[in-house]
Amino acid sequence: MNTLGKNIRLTSYGESHGEVVGAILDGFPAGFSLNVDYIQGQLDRRKPGQSRVSTPREEADKVIINSGVFNGKTTGAPIHFQLKNNNAKPKDYAHLKEVYRPSHADYTYDARYGAGNRDYRGGGRSSARVTAGWVAGGALVQDYLAKENQIKISAYVKQIGGVKLETPAILYTIEEVDATIVRCPDEGVAATMIVAIEQAQKDKDSLGGIIECVVSGVPAGLGNPVFDKLNAALGHAMLSINAVKGFELGGGFEMSSKRGREVNDSFEMKDGKPYTKTNNSGGIQGGISNGMDIVFRVAFKPTATIGTLQSTLNTSGDEVELEATGRHDPCVVPRAVPIVETLAALVVGGYVL
Amino acid sequence: MNTLGKNIRLTSYGESHGEVVGAILDGFPAGFSLNVDYIQGQLDRRKPGQSRVSTPREEADKVIINSGVFNGKTTGAPIHFQLKNNNAKPKDYAHLKEVYRPSHADYTYDARYGAGNRDYRGGGRSSARVTAGWVAGGALVQDYLAKENQIKISAYVKQIGGVKLETPAILYTIEEVDATIVRCPDEGVAATMIVAIEQAQKDKDSLGGIIECVVSGVPAGLGNPVFDKLNAALGHAMLSINAVKGFELGGGFEMSSKRGREVNDSFEMKDGKPYTKTNNSGGIQGGISNGMDIVFRVAFKPTATIGTLQSTLNTSGDEVELEATGRHDPCVVPRAVPIVETLAALVVGGYVL
Amino acid sequence: MNTLGKNIRLTSYGESHGEVVGAILDGFPAGFSLNVDYIQGQLDRRKPGQSRVSTPREEADKVIINSGVFNGKTTGAPIHFQLKNNNAKPKDYAHLKEVYRPSHADYTYDARYGAGNRDYRGGGRSSARVTAGWVAGGALVQDYLAKENQIKISAYVKQIGGVKLETPAILYTIEEVDATIVRCPDEGVAATMIVAIEQAQKDKDSLGGIIECVVSGVPAGLGNPVFDKLNAALGHAMLSINAVKGFELGGGFEMSSKRGREVNDSFEMKDGKPYTKTNNSGGIQGGISNGMDIVFRVAFKPTATIGTLQSTLNTSGDEVELEATGRHDPCVVPRAVPIVETLAALVVGGYVL
Amino acid sequence: MNTLGKNIRLTSYGESHGEVVGAILDGFPAGFSLNVDYIQGQLDRRKPGQSRVSTPREEADKVIINSGVFNGKTTGAPIHFQLKNNNAKPKDYAHLKEVYRPSHADYTYDARYGAGNRDYRGGGRSSARVTAGWVAGGALVQDYLAKENQIKISAYVKQIGGVKLETPAILYTIEEVDATIVRCPDEGVAATMIVAIEQAQKDKDSLGGIIECVVSGVPAGLGNPVFDKLNAALGHAMLSINAVKGFELGGGFEMSSKRGREVNDSFEMKDGKPYTKTNNSGGIQGGISNGMDIVFRVAFKPTATIGTLQSTLNTSGDEVELEATGRHDPCVVPRAVPIVETLAALVVGGYVL
Repeated sequence: MNTLGKNIRLTSYGESHGEVVGAILDGFPAGFSLNVDYIQGQLDRRKPGQSRVSTPREEADKVIINSGVFNGKTTGAPIHFQLKNNNAKPKDYAHLKEVYRPSHADYTYDARYGAGNRDYRGGGRSSARVTAGWVAGGALVQDYLAKENQIKISAYVKQIGGVKLETPAILYTIEEVDATIVRCPDEGVAATMIVAIEQAQKDKDSLGGIIECVVSGVPAGLGNPVFDKLNAALGHAMLSINAVKGFELGGGFEMSSKRGREVNDSFEMKDGKPYTKTNNSGGIQGGISNGMDIVFRVAFKPTATIGTLQSTLNTSGDEVELEATGRHDPCVVPRAVPIVETLAALVVGGYVL
Repeated sequence: MNTLGKNIRLTSYGESHGEVVGAILDGFPAGFSLNVDYIQGQLDRRKPGQSRVSTPREEADKVIINSGVFNGKTTGAPIHFQLKNNNAKPKDYAHLKEVYRPSHADYTYDARYGAGNRDYRGGGRSSARVTAGWVAGGALVQDYLAKENQIKISAYVKQIGGVKLETPAILYTIEEVDATIVRCPDEGVAATMIVAIEQAQKDKDSLGGIIECVVSGVPAGLGNPVFDKLNAALGHAMLSINAVKGFELGGGFEMSSKRGREVNDSFEMKDGKPYTKTNNSGGIQGGISNGMDIVFRVAFKPTATIGTLQSTLNTSGDEVELEATGRHDPCVVPRAVPIVETLAALVVGGYVL
Repeated sequence: MNTLGKNIRLTSYGESHGEVVGAILDGFPAGFSLNVDYIQGQLDRRKPGQSRVSTPREEADKVIINSGVFNGKTTGAPIHFQLKNNNAKPKDYAHLKEVYRPSHADYTYDARYGAGNRDYRGGGRSSARVTAGWVAGGALVQDYLAKENQIKISAYVKQIGGVKLETPAILYTIEEVDATIVRCPDEGVAATMIVAIEQAQKDKDSLGGIIECVVSGVPAGLGNPVFDKLNAALGHAMLSINAVKGFELGGGFEMSSKRGREVNDSFEMKDGKPYTKTNNSGGIQGGISNGMDIVFRVAFKPTATIGTLQSTLNTSGDEVELEATGRHDPCVVPRAVPIVETLAALVVGGYVL
Repeated sequence: MNTLGKNIRLTSYGESHGEVVGAILDGFPAGFSLNVDYIQGQLDRRKPGQSRVSTPREEADKVIINSGVFNGKTTGAPIHFQLKNNNAKPKDYAHLKEVYRPSHADYTYDARYGAGNRDYRGGGRSSARVTAGWVAGGALVQDYLAKENQIKISAYVKQIGGVKLETPAILYTIEEVDATIVRCPDEGVAATMIVAIEQAQKDKDSLGGIIECVVSGVPAGLGNPVFDKLNAALGHAMLSINAVKGFELGGGFEMSSKRGREVNDSFEMKDGKPYTKTNNSGGIQGGISNGMDIVFRVAFKPTATIGTLQSTLNTSGDEVELEATGRHDPCVVPRAVPIVETLAALVVGGYVL
């Protein structure tokens, strides 16, 4: 239940305000030179406190790797990643012990695990902080795919609130994506997004958004029918991220209102191999890659935690008023970019390795 | 790879124009009275030739069940479902042996399994005909959930091409859904959808659409963090259906452009249990059901097969022209309604049983 | 629960006196020429009525293969194997409806699935007849391994009752093994075994035995630590066979009474690759093959069904007397030889393919 | 590959002379009061340096538990166990970098993961030290089963070298088992075993042995046909332990030389429920528990590491002489008792929880 994947498997553990969060990566090949800087880089892109549009919680998030690596190289044994929770402030959350925050997982965890067993400190196990372990493991796979298979994965912010990047999906470099603090590769659009976030922040409100991800260099023939489709595995992984409410591939939902002639991807030859003139298929047909860029989008709802008074229930069933005081992001989308990338790497890696 | 689920598992086999399609359902409880009529009813909703907006291929699609049942009751042993392909016309497809149809899985299957190994007859293994086995197995679970757990699952057509049903998601009866041949519960909207399909048919073109599904009666507490979320499992299943390009839960993609205050679901008490005033969460929070209706939508692209001339490649890499002559649906969405329902039953059943 | 394996997966269904038994093999590679004769040959070695030391039940056991194969070659899609139960005599078993046969699975199935749900006809799902589906699927993998990987698998009877074959484990040909009806490759020992079985039969009693299996040609490096060891996977598969009570690898239980110096396998070079002078490791060290023959033994208890009066309980808890009248084998071991071989093929194939 | 189980899953990581060994336990129920002392107690029974018949390596083996527990109770989230390797002496093993120790996993790891990638320090990942993480996770499940399900699991040494405990399998208390340093509950037999080990030690040799395990209080009806049999799952787990070469249930291998009449377990009523007069079935019939004690035995080969000169190969393929100098057990069997118990708990727990 806390494990993702089949050939490459990531098993996650830890809570937001416990001592640690971490993960075990199993099935990773031997003999690969560990690049801790790359992994740390992805963690730094995810970590709190990195910009004025993210939560003020401060975590060094320095990754510890203490198994599966010998003399700087992977051995084929499971690799354990761990991050300490240094800036945990569990007391900030004492008032949440007996309140179900709206659109959070407090109530459902109580329903699932029995009232009174929930670690309520900052969302506990349901917090997005646990994705730090995912990013660590996934970043290693992402680095491997880039170096050993020439498969590049790049995600970026496509939309925040009503502000949209309208250009077609392409593989951006990390420099292009990270040029702005919202991780939208168009400077003008990014500026408008920042304004929107800051306005929401001022209003003690929050914003949703969309991340687009491009996986380039995937050879044709990756994926398995009928219940192990590459798109289904990607969808499963993305829908595991906190606050995600939708997933679409290639032309996605928009294709529902189209006709076949408008969206069918015609084949032609290019550089000696089949190529489609358009890519509404998003690089996957019948669950198997066709060699074109894999393109998908992930929809995030607005951060559920907002500084405004909301009516809700406590654990006794009484209606109460709640005003969030813990630290939180007005919009999680920019920090979710490395989460999308690294989970995509875990999924694609599971078919490649 | 051809198995869906963990506790309740469906393993699929068969090809569109081979002798049979079928499935094994494993993990189903003992002692349940088999209602073959219910299962056959769902198969009849899926079968070809059922209306003027579906493919003219005619299949009786009478289900054979020959294991796991004794004296009319399930025994706990695996249940084998089989359907014969009576109206297979493999010769109709001889011209496709060496052509890659645009936006089909012909090329990707060749890339995955090696050129020359593909059963090209009507799409072979990649055809939606194989979903007949899924529907048979899933219908048994759907019947069980309704009778033993008061969990009702109802899907219906929300959109075809540009024509949309704008009313909120509710649990319709099968009679309401099947009142029109497009399975849209609003007669007026349905009539416009039918016109749109017939126009596409006339134009030798095809249409996409959206199915909405409501799962009602699910108790709070179903689902598991963090990689076994109920929404991720539903997404995985839906993205396994042929022609599906997107999945969204509750408020879905639209929530990306909203603020938290607009979409947060406030709790209140109703009939002695927590209830949310709105249901933008789609009945699932943190991957676990909250007791509200589970609501999700599935986006289908237009049928890839169209009767218009398209340019494409053959297996030798030459550019050729292709005009489809096999039988096909101008819009697969109405026939996909029972597929969505029964896959949802398999997923939900996997957490309940 | 009815599926074996991870990369190559066999899913089993069917009951002893239902209409059919069968299996789906998933994950088998594309492009392999199906040799139905080889598969049928293994089924013939397993089928009842083949000699005077086996049950008189007569089944043609002609295998039907109706998916995953196109133009005589596998396509990569799941392969469905089915065998009809022609000689089912369910009425012979009416007297067993309410009696728990000693050392059978009647009582435990009732405990597991609820009294009254059990298919009691000839053991139903718990009958060794369901292994026919396993043999069909496994035989295809066995044929593949021999042709594509030069991996040969040969099992033979090592012991029946007190009669033992004392020679070291070697790879016998099928002709050598099948030279006698008990499948012991030493004619003299086989003759004594036959006498022992016939005496047990005369006494309305039954006999147990041991099968030894040699897998030759496995390259070094197959298997995975720490919970996916090749020996653990083999043990799991063998302990799934009806009537099996033990599994041992290489030197096995005898090594427990030995010292390290006596049983350590020293390495030397032979034909340019590491080789061990002895093979007490049974070809596997640390869960991974070392390139030597894999050698294991499987212990079968005597057939539980005997023609002698036994005291037991009925489903109401009354003590009753039972005398078996259905058809059964005095010793199942000779017919289990192809079961051991084909399950070994499924396991080894899962690591090779 | 480093995960055991389905409902209750243990994922293992770490190496013998790395910084840590550990495990994640997933699927454990919420609301159980963590008894660290019990877990530490089982770890202490496994830890090195505990008696004069075990390795002199000294490890405090104090367990760290830092997720999945809140206010002293489990939360349903994954539980992370970690143990530091304090007494690691990696330099002791430098001479093993390029030598394949006989009957160890050095050569097979190189074959599996590529020469040069192996952590050769004390066997690295293939060392039995990694079982410390298994014991920690399994001990929690063992404690749970005892308290919540009245299922007691007790293992003890049945045989060391040629010295055997001849009494029938019964449930001993931990005090009875631990009364002697070899964990054989008969003082006289234990004394002889100790002499045998000390003699082997003096001879710079090692000894094998057998552990017997009794699981008492298991209700009838636990286990699943046909590939998820309780005995197959137990066998799989036991065959995952280092140095194990065999597994048998109930009457085991001895039943192979018996007749049905001698070993069939007749049913009778006792205290209002079915009971078998004998227990040659070992508590499991058709893969499902029958309510009697589950009894199985696990065969360990002699420790492969011995202080005597042995001929072997180095990684270049040259024949060399090797004399072990690292710390090791002359007989691992007494320390393996808690490993057998806790793995049995993990397996049984997977069916109960």
